[in-house]
Amino acid sequence: MRILLVGASGTIGRLVYDTLRERGHDVVTVGRSSGDVRCDVTDPVQVEELWSKVGEIDAVVSTAGHVRYAPLAELTSDDFAAAFADKALAQINLVRTGLEHLAPKGSFTLISGIPSRDPVVSGAAAAAVNGAIEAFARAAAIEIAPRRINVISPSVLEESLEAFGDFFPGFEPVAGAEVARAFVKSVEGAATGQILALP
Amino acid sequence: MRILLVGASGTIGRLVYDTLRERGHDVVTVGRSSGDVRCDVTDPVQVEELWSKVGEIDAVVSTAGHVRYAPLAELTSDDFAAAFADKALAQINLVRTGLEHLAPKGSFTLISGIPSRDPVVSGAAAAAVNGAIEAFARAAAIEIAPRRINVISPSVLEESLEAFGDFFPGFEPVAGAEVARAFVKSVEGAATGQILALP
Repeated sequence: MRILLVGASGTIGRLVYDTLRERGHDVVTVGRSSGDVRCDVTDPVQVEELWSKVGEIDAVVSTAGHVRYAPLAELTSDDFAAAFADKALAQINLVRTGLEHLAPKGSFTLISGIPSRDPVVSGAAAAAVNGAIEAFARAAAIEIAPRRINVISPSVLEESLEAFGDFFPGFEPVAGAEVARAFVKSVEGAATGQILALP
Repeated sequence: MRILLVGASGTIGRLVYDTLRERGHDVVTVGRSSGDVRCDVTDPVQVEELWSKVGEIDAVVSTAGHVRYAPLAELTSDDFAAAFADKALAQINLVRTGLEHLAPKGSFTLISGIPSRDPVVSGAAAAAVNGAIEAFARAAAIEIAPRRINVISPSVLEESLEAFGDFFPGFEPVAGAEVARAFVKSVEGAATGQILALP
């Protein structure tokens, strides 16, 4: 398949890139400052223009999005707005604008994260944004068939324990390779409207 | 209790107002253009300033928030951003800024809606925003204890079938009085981090 990968320079993105390539896919990477195609997906105008640069795509895979972790009393209105714009709206806009450029049975696979289903202290913005992404995908799935959409929702990554482990005490971490495997399941499988929770 | 009610002029807000008053509560209404206290809760600055006008509050109840219903292909980036700002961020900011003004065992009760758990065509923005509110509340609950937070998630209202019924074919509607009862359960009960789904 010809797969558009947004966020290829991130921890998960790199693993997803390698895994999709190993499985024989043609992966077109999209990034703000690196990648085959340059696009800041948090800019709705740039997302609209992205598709004319990439041609027809069989699958869109997104591993991008930043959210601030901080105690609720320290999170600002701007933190929540920025988190929504950076992680939720950017991915929603990929789906909205990509629909007509996606192969008839193509798929979108987005990323969320565990705090929406299993909350942690300092994770209120992450929870809100991930909850938005997951509910959006369930709703979008019933409108875009036969095209598909799923969300990968990982726990803290084994590879990110040094930076994020303290936010997830006692949480079972997940290996990045397992997260990459879930992306393959979404892209090559037939499920839609699903939240693939890991581990 | 002394209860701050945001959205008292809406269909649900009016019923919640009457119900809380009948149960003997002192209800302070907040609205953009009507109510005891004027405040546009979608303006983060006005929300910050709200609390100095109302004094100590035992419970904050929100029934406010507008989201556009339209097919996914017709919803714009601005529609999603506006829906998030109007319904999710406004309620999140009520919680964030109200925390230090709420009685030690006080509560917040927010409103979401059924599309986040049971999606409908044209409800992708509603689903995303309601999903954000619900996940936020689950996360906030573990940080604000002993103060509490819950979300009321109603199906389409019997009172709103004329305007919204076509979006919810075969969905069991819920009487506004039952929704108001759920707000009482949240305010007077002891639950926290819960999504009260109706019917």
